[in-house]
Amino acid sequence: MAEVGAKAIALDTMGGDHAPREIVRGALRAIEKGIITAPELILVGDRDRVAAELKEAGGATVNLQIVHAPDVIEMDEAPLEALRRKRGASIVVATDLVREKRAGAVVSAGHTGAATACAILRLGTLEGIRRPGIAVTFETLRGKAVLIDVGANVDCKPVHLFQYGLMAHAYSRDVLGIATPRIALLNIGEEEEKGNRLAREAADLFRASGLPFIGNIEGQDIFKGKADVLVCDGFVGNLILKTSEGLGEFMLQIFQRELAAVLLPDQVKALVLKSAAHIDYAEHGGALLLGVDGIVIIGHGRSDERAAASMIRVAKKFVDAEVNRHIVTALGNSKDAPGAQAESSPATNSPA
Amino acid sequence: MAEVGAKAIALDTMGGDHAPREIVRGALRAIEKGIITAPELILVGDRDRVAAELKEAGGATVNLQIVHAPDVIEMDEAPLEALRRKRGASIVVATDLVREKRAGAVVSAGHTGAATACAILRLGTLEGIRRPGIAVTFETLRGKAVLIDVGANVDCKPVHLFQYGLMAHAYSRDVLGIATPRIALLNIGEEEEKGNRLAREAADLFRASGLPFIGNIEGQDIFKGKADVLVCDGFVGNLILKTSEGLGEFMLQIFQRELAAVLLPDQVKALVLKSAAHIDYAEHGGALLLGVDGIVIIGHGRSDERAAASMIRVAKKFVDAEVNRHIVTALGNSKDAPGAQAESSPATNSPA
Repeated sequence: MAEVGAKAIALDTMGGDHAPREIVRGALRAIEKGIITAPELILVGDRDRVAAELKEAGGATVNLQIVHAPDVIEMDEAPLEALRRKRGASIVVATDLVREKRAGAVVSAGHTGAATACAILRLGTLEGIRRPGIAVTFETLRGKAVLIDVGANVDCKPVHLFQYGLMAHAYSRDVLGIATPRIALLNIGEEEEKGNRLAREAADLFRASGLPFIGNIEGQDIFKGKADVLVCDGFVGNLILKTSEGLGEFMLQIFQRELAAVLLPDQVKALVLKSAAHIDYAEHGGALLLGVDGIVIIGHGRSDERAAASMIRVAKKFVDAEVNRHIVTALGNSKDAPGAQAESSPATNSPA
Repeated sequence: MAEVGAKAIALDTMGGDHAPREIVRGALRAIEKGIITAPELILVGDRDRVAAELKEAGGATVNLQIVHAPDVIEMDEAPLEALRRKRGASIVVATDLVREKRAGAVVSAGHTGAATACAILRLGTLEGIRRPGIAVTFETLRGKAVLIDVGANVDCKPVHLFQYGLMAHAYSRDVLGIATPRIALLNIGEEEEKGNRLAREAADLFRASGLPFIGNIEGQDIFKGKADVLVCDGFVGNLILKTSEGLGEFMLQIFQRELAAVLLPDQVKALVLKSAAHIDYAEHGGALLLGVDGIVIIGHGRSDERAAASMIRVAKKFVDAEVNRHIVTALGNSKDAPGAQAESSPATNSPA
């Protein structure tokens, strides 16, 4: 990898509900705050629109590189078909910067499915990985925990769950800095015989491996921080993530209503904001697609300026931490582990 | 059905983390509050222990019938094996009161799997129903909604999900009194092609039926009240329910911490309690096992006196509302609906 290029961040400025405006502003914010230097950031998108947004945000004088991408994949498009049709889509152009080693990470708040499919097709999976998974980091009563998969893969096999645990373990230890991360499977009971077939078979793989697997964990224990890495299939994980988001907002509204009866509006606002920070996706900087040969950060569709800057911060951290090197090492160490052998060459592996 | 017997409630006093004490006290509370009359309530459990608890709670003079059950199924037992071994378990004796038409409903805060299996084996399913499902009612920003299944059936087929929707729709309309309940499938996207195979095939069944199906709903929209009946398999539903419970507690703790910095302890306590009421399982009175030939209320293992009284209140309401008559009618009306024909005689159907 070329030293400078591999450290740059390719920012999809066209992805997300508030793109390109908020994403471009997020880029400027990240530079202002010293999160990243201008040469390390590449804005990908419609050149004229991005330039206009830069100008309006007062950033026209910042020396930011824009790589033109004429198309955008909209939120309601079928990912694979859209990727075939829109060769000039911002997510494709941004991902190709990573493929060509001109950047080390791609950051997008656009279509999650498109970003995932694009990464698999253009970057390939890490050798030995059957399916990439999307990991999110969130706050518990005892620190940060990682949930994987939150939507990359909705019809999982046991080996996929096992590899999710392995990858997120490396990520938790080597990037989040948790000394000995405990892996658990999300399940509907702690006992070994509980759950659906997928969960039971995945548990067997974990138990047979050398990984620090603590068994099943139930939903009510997630936020107590009983485990550092929580593994489930993408259907369950996505619903858990989104339901938590919805319930969090519901509870903030309840708080607000109850507080309004006894406190002044400014006090209410301050308290709600402080409480909200603990469950704030914008603070946590997006999700990470683990298992592809490159760093891919997927932000919330609703990302605003602040969230976009957070994503850039997190991407920079991942690039610096060389998250994939740690995963590849962990995979190498687990060659004897069940499922790690897998097929030697899955169809999606390293087309580059 | 005999008029009086079929209206009685059989209370499993031995099930739950705080049984029999809190359950017995819940029974007395329900009578005190006029929720139910003493002759309508049958306490099932170890006669001496129940009598002792009654005495200690000052209820020795209340004319409550106790039906002796020498055994208890513990929370960590495998349900089917335990049911085989412990013929005198309180949940079995209580369920048999319904089977024998001496009661119209059984209420238990004990082992969910045991209560479910016991109901299927001793009461049988309603004719045409393939698998019973557990429904919970909860509060949204726009009123009450029902989530089904939260753990009866972890390896679902599309027809199971379809029947869950049909049953919960009848329940929502005829018991909760929602005029035109909207049914939605929990999924990871609103678009038809989203989700795993199970969700896609179940959606086809709903769309082909005459039921008011509004399509897929994502996790973040559950608490906004976008649908009145939310359908998913028991693995997903249980995780969603439990995760919500855990996140609710997490947020109350956050909230408490933030409030403690600006308010007096008594004010903090009052506000937290008021907020907690909106997500309080004890207020909502347990879950309902839909699809068996009898009314089965399954309470939270942590149920205290107040939760036990709530369960009795809800059971009484269900008995009075004849929830199963409405479901049978709905099933009859949907004979032409896909999947409703099913096998004519599933193995678990009406052993009685």
